Amino acid sequence: MSLVFYYAPMSTAETVNWALAELEIPHEKVVIDLKARDQDKRGYRALDPNGRVPLVVHDGVPIFESAAILIHLGETFGVDRGLFPAPGLERALALKWLVWTNVTLGAAVGRFLEKAFGPPEQKDGEAVGLARAEVERLFGILEAELAKTPYVAGETFSLVDVHLGGFVYWIASLGFDLTRWPGIAAWQARCTSRPGHARALAS
Amino acid sequence: MSLVFYYAPMSTAETVNWALAELEIPHEKVVIDLKARDQDKRGYRALDPNGRVPLVVHDGVPIFESAAILIHLGETFGVDRGLFPAPGLERALALKWLVWTNVTLGAAVGRFLEKAFGPPEQKDGEAVGLARAEVERLFGILEAELAKTPYVAGETFSLVDVHLGGFVYWIASLGFDLTRWPGIAAWQARCTSRPGHARALAS
Repeated sequence: MSLVFYYAPMSTAETVNWALAELEIPHEKVVIDLKARDQDKRGYRALDPNGRVPLVVHDGVPIFESAAILIHLGETFGVDRGLFPAPGLERALALKWLVWTNVTLGAAVGRFLEKAFGPPEQKDGEAVGLARAEVERLFGILEAELAKTPYVAGETFSLVDVHLGGFVYWIASLGFDLTRWPGIAAWQARCTSRPGHARALAS
Repeated sequence: MSLVFYYAPMSTAETVNWALAELEIPHEKVVIDLKARDQDKRGYRALDPNGRVPLVVHDGVPIFESAAILIHLGETFGVDRGLFPAPGLERALALKWLVWTNVTLGAAVGRFLEKAFGPPEQKDGEAVGLARAEVERLFGILEAELAKTPYVAGETFSLVDVHLGGFVYWIASLGFDLTRWPGIAAWQARCTSRPGHARALAS
């Protein structure tokens, strides 16, 4: 088995980095220098025509989109390790939150970034406020979910917590104070206190 | 087995409608009137706190996010019917394009809709052009992929073609002329000529 992980620090590749550390899968890590435009080089575009990170090449097959990578790693390596549900309705819960992370929460954060950090001449305080409120509304949905179960997809920690948890950690760094959502803050603390998270930071 | 499908016409629920028609799974269809704000009613929000369609409730478990629904239907009902790859690297190809549909193509179309159909006082021709060019760039990526294999995830038709194909069909209706991408146009014709597509239109 060969697994090559194309990575850039402080990008959505971080959740894949954490997932690989939790799963303890041997792999080769290739750092892509986004400022030097490594992602535009012909060899990289042949693997990922989108020219983005993360990218995982598993036995020669390139897999892009972080949520797809997490699902693939989960179903291939995670079930035996207790980090991803077996096929069935518990698996479906994992799938819906993994996709929600990138589609619904991801789109809201994208709009916030565009409004809050776009060109100054286009800055519009009301639009920034609306975009921020939408991210906060989605945090409210997550808070309500975490009031029901200790982890996003149920009673036990899984790669869903890695993916959504890593994404929320990054959103917080954009200026969202997680102490307003005590359930989310406590869940983040549970997830980041794991040895797997320490291994990810060290790698 | 019980499966309830919450649906609205001309929404992303259409790809789930087509998938159920291809799979020929018995199900109950509930139409959600988005203009009457059915999606805001308390009972619906208890199933989907996002208040959107599509939603599938499978044996009592609510599953939102169209890409997650397609993956769940695919792995649960699609493998035996030859409409979804078995777990492994072919499955990974399916996953990456299913997620790409909603995350990468979805975000680009969202920006185009915001720029092209937003409030007139905010209309900016240059921004509309840039957003349109980004959607067209992604069509170029898909065109190159379809030059390699007749269907998105390989040699045979699968639920990936349903999902991405249905989404592309909807994007075309926003004013993108698919004849500029002959590979995409030919693939669309192959997919929509299937009996499963006719069943979806009739249902």
